[in-house]
Amino acid sequence: MPQELRAVDWTGNSLALIDQTALPHRTETREIRDVDGLVDAIQRLVVRGAPAIGAAGAYGVALALLQGGREGWSAEETRAAVARVRAARPTAVNLMVCVDRVMARFDEGLDAVLAEAAAVQREDVEANRAMGAYGADWLLKKVGVDRPLRVLTHCNTGALATAGWGTALGVIRELHARGLVEVVYADETRPLLQGSRLTAWELVQEGIPHYVQADGAAAGTILRGEVDAAIVGADRIAANGDTANKVGTVGVALACADAGIPFLVAAPTTTVDLATATGADIHIELRGEDEVLEWSGVRTAPAESRGHNPAFDVTPGRLVTGLVTERGVLEISAGELPAHHLR
Amino acid sequence: MPQELRAVDWTGNSLALIDQTALPHRTETREIRDVDGLVDAIQRLVVRGAPAIGAAGAYGVALALLQGGREGWSAEETRAAVARVRAARPTAVNLMVCVDRVMARFDEGLDAVLAEAAAVQREDVEANRAMGAYGADWLLKKVGVDRPLRVLTHCNTGALATAGWGTALGVIRELHARGLVEVVYADETRPLLQGSRLTAWELVQEGIPHYVQADGAAAGTILRGEVDAAIVGADRIAANGDTANKVGTVGVALACADAGIPFLVAAPTTTVDLATATGADIHIELRGEDEVLEWSGVRTAPAESRGHNPAFDVTPGRLVTGLVTERGVLEISAGELPAHHLR
Repeated sequence: MPQELRAVDWTGNSLALIDQTALPHRTETREIRDVDGLVDAIQRLVVRGAPAIGAAGAYGVALALLQGGREGWSAEETRAAVARVRAARPTAVNLMVCVDRVMARFDEGLDAVLAEAAAVQREDVEANRAMGAYGADWLLKKVGVDRPLRVLTHCNTGALATAGWGTALGVIRELHARGLVEVVYADETRPLLQGSRLTAWELVQEGIPHYVQADGAAAGTILRGEVDAAIVGADRIAANGDTANKVGTVGVALACADAGIPFLVAAPTTTVDLATATGADIHIELRGEDEVLEWSGVRTAPAESRGHNPAFDVTPGRLVTGLVTERGVLEISAGELPAHHLR
Repeated sequence: MPQELRAVDWTGNSLALIDQTALPHRTETREIRDVDGLVDAIQRLVVRGAPAIGAAGAYGVALALLQGGREGWSAEETRAAVARVRAARPTAVNLMVCVDRVMARFDEGLDAVLAEAAAVQREDVEANRAMGAYGADWLLKKVGVDRPLRVLTHCNTGALATAGWGTALGVIRELHARGLVEVVYADETRPLLQGSRLTAWELVQEGIPHYVQADGAAAGTILRGEVDAAIVGADRIAANGDTANKVGTVGVALACADAGIPFLVAAPTTTVDLATATGADIHIELRGEDEVLEWSGVRTAPAESRGHNPAFDVTPGRLVTGLVTERGVLEISAGELPAHHLR
């Protein structure tokens, strides 16, 4: 995608979000002017991807201040509104970290809040660029082949999911910039198809060769030797390296471990939550049943069936070959744990 | 489903197939009167599931004889038509085994052919009943708990996929008949949703509590300890126990191995192909890209994206805890290989 196209953009007095529910068919921007609108946009996945949600949440503090000004809120009421933004999705830690960071300047007023939110956004792009380079270097050394790589990814972790550039997809973009991507297998990522709708769309913009495949195809594609490495993002990483990410991720990790290929998690250090000891402490968001029972409003399962719809799963740290952050790579499965290295 | 409802039924001079592409919304029967119609029905998955395709193929010999009589074919031409039925789908071995069995009586004429096809169908139901009982006994012993089981299944292996009763779903029906099913997690089984459309429909008919979930959810559900065992069918089993089944199966097997719970394959001995040494020798059908790029004719991925659509994957025998056939259970991962036990 063009560098200047941003999933999250501050217009001066509102937040412009690319409506990711409309992609890949239509590129539409939603202008968000108040807290209700932002909470709704986060929950309906108009904006999604942990770092992008974090950036949107950061600007959400400014939105709350502006709305509070218009509607005569007390500081108390404004803080309560910010708390609603902060809690809009429970699994991603970035949202909470970014909101808290900006809230530290709440008492200094709008300009300070906006400056901090802009810094959150700018630093996320810088972090993504850094992890792209670290991740690409590490992968090439780890895979140890002298040809372009065949990589698999799950969900969307690109410019749309971040403040810009991308995490896992940022590593892939970096590899592509070096001429070292043969093909990307993009899992479609049911139930909401972030892979086929968003990742494929970004790969098309970049001119990167790719296949979209059913999520169930990932393990077989890996076990047949058609993939050199898998690269995914993360929504929350525990102190022991256990990693919560989009549902379906742990299946990719299991297949990589079985095939003996690298499984790389790319995420900024804001995704690491040292207060969370292990994956067992991560709250997994259960989303509405209809996401799995319907398709565009048309029921696909029998009317009597129930749906089970966890939005995330937890990959045990023992299956995470590498975790790349803006500071470098930790080889988690070899014992380099966030708890020891990311204080 | 009512016992008398059959996915494959001989009417006297044609084959009546429940159109599985129309379920769960509409229960429609297609009357097949000629070889072209049967090949088309097999390839479009009007009839699917290895044993059901086998039964349809068995009756296909009778259809070819009848059509040859109407259209004045030589025996040579009739045999060529049968060969087209036999090759309609490349991965399932049952189709070839069943066609060959009936073809052994080709020279005896229509009545002998019909008697053999009916025997194929009757014996499949008997085999399913037997494997249901063997499988249920084995699972209860293996799981070793004194309460109803929580089982996970992938794709559809029920009465619709067989001549009646079901293979993996037959084991589940047997457990349910004993009051020992707490809940079934039915993977939706992308891209064609046999799980949410067909398995869920059969579970509704039986009154068995169930959740439909995205295929990507299976590994997480298993690793979180929400499942006691997984039970799946098979399309072809090699001499060493490597098992080809619907794409997504090997991911379930990897998760079961990691969680230390039983992974049971239920399939009649006709699914075992001792002439196939290992899974590497199994031809994996690549189906059309549009199945993964579109939904009901609406494109979901960008127009420029390619799709990768293997219909099956191969689960290594080392991950198959048990293989239940109509003769009993082989503990494949413990070294009881089909090559040694199923001559």
